[in-house]
Amino acid sequence: MSDKNGLFITFEGVDGSGKTTQIRKLHDFLENQGIAVDLIREPGGTAIGEQIRALLLDKSNGEMSSETELLLYEAARSQIVRERILPSLRAGQVVICDRFFDSTTAYQGYGRGLDLADIERLNRWATGGLEPDLTFFLDLPVKEAMRRMEGRLIDSDRLEEEGCEFLSRVRDGYLEILARNSRMVHLDATTPIDSIYKQIQSKVWEVINK
Amino acid sequence: MSDKNGLFITFEGVDGSGKTTQIRKLHDFLENQGIAVDLIREPGGTAIGEQIRALLLDKSNGEMSSETELLLYEAARSQIVRERILPSLRAGQVVICDRFFDSTTAYQGYGRGLDLADIERLNRWATGGLEPDLTFFLDLPVKEAMRRMEGRLIDSDRLEEEGCEFLSRVRDGYLEILARNSRMVHLDATTPIDSIYKQIQSKVWEVINK
Repeated sequence: MSDKNGLFITFEGVDGSGKTTQIRKLHDFLENQGIAVDLIREPGGTAIGEQIRALLLDKSNGEMSSETELLLYEAARSQIVRERILPSLRAGQVVICDRFFDSTTAYQGYGRGLDLADIERLNRWATGGLEPDLTFFLDLPVKEAMRRMEGRLIDSDRLEEEGCEFLSRVRDGYLEILARNSRMVHLDATTPIDSIYKQIQSKVWEVINK
Repeated sequence: MSDKNGLFITFEGVDGSGKTTQIRKLHDFLENQGIAVDLIREPGGTAIGEQIRALLLDKSNGEMSSETELLLYEAARSQIVRERILPSLRAGQVVICDRFFDSTTAYQGYGRGLDLADIERLNRWATGGLEPDLTFFLDLPVKEAMRRMEGRLIDSDRLEEEGCEFLSRVRDGYLEILARNSRMVHLDATTPIDSIYKQIQSKVWEVINK
């Protein structure tokens, strides 16, 4: 992936942690600076990816095995990397991705208990070795995450029905990933939106102007 | 997979090689003998698998990357193994599968040129290590396969549009798999249907009564 010129930024955290809000703010800021941004939601982000996303979030697919779920996420990711992320990076754009392979490690690995070495191998294979330059982890205590999700039950999907213990394992997983990766920036998602955003903006600006 | 009691039979070969006809004959024979048979078409075979199959065969998904395609096949397979094949084998049934992981090795590996070691690892991971007891390979020269497919262009899908060179690599792949696996039985698909079927029936009957 040595031929990429752009900047690849991912956002991670449980649902309700404020990723969408922060991504929108960062997107608007960069565009106002005249910087081309490609905003991607994972899984999805391509026609094939959106079909896979629909399959994953379909409540009637409750009997889906954990292995099948993981392979579907990797299939969507593999398509996004080749069809959108790499071309945008090669064109010098900033790519912002709402979830990437850290979600798989946190949810399918730490959350569902699939073997972490298998997941890392699959992550690497599906992405062809591509890694984010910068990952913002919006960290939310489990109780607060549950409270926020109750407020939007109408949006709840299969993944959000897993409950408190699952979310707790996912959060621990994110903290482990954070400890092992210098590209990851920890943000306290219980603090005010603007204060979180200031940290994101200054970090991105620093990297862009390096 | 030591707790399985049934017999796991797979059929392999390019489209047009007569798999469906032979499977139907074997199925009818076994049922007439009072043997319970679970007949599975791969990809598909489960509600989730059929959705994945539709995605794979959708001509409008022509821009699908080889890696995405492989991961989707493995996702469908992973679900079929856990939701149907293993329960049926545990119940002592004969499971007949129209294509299994040898198709992935032949088509995605030898055909599309994906790394064979990666494919074998993915095959093993998706199936949890399950292997067929018996695999019938209906071998058809490429020219004859092309001729037969022209006769049913109305059924042609994305995979069948790959052309002669692709099919030739796939056939070579099958022959390599045959050379390495004693579970695989070579059958000349240009010989009469009934003569092929006699070989299949006698081999299956021999294994069942062992």
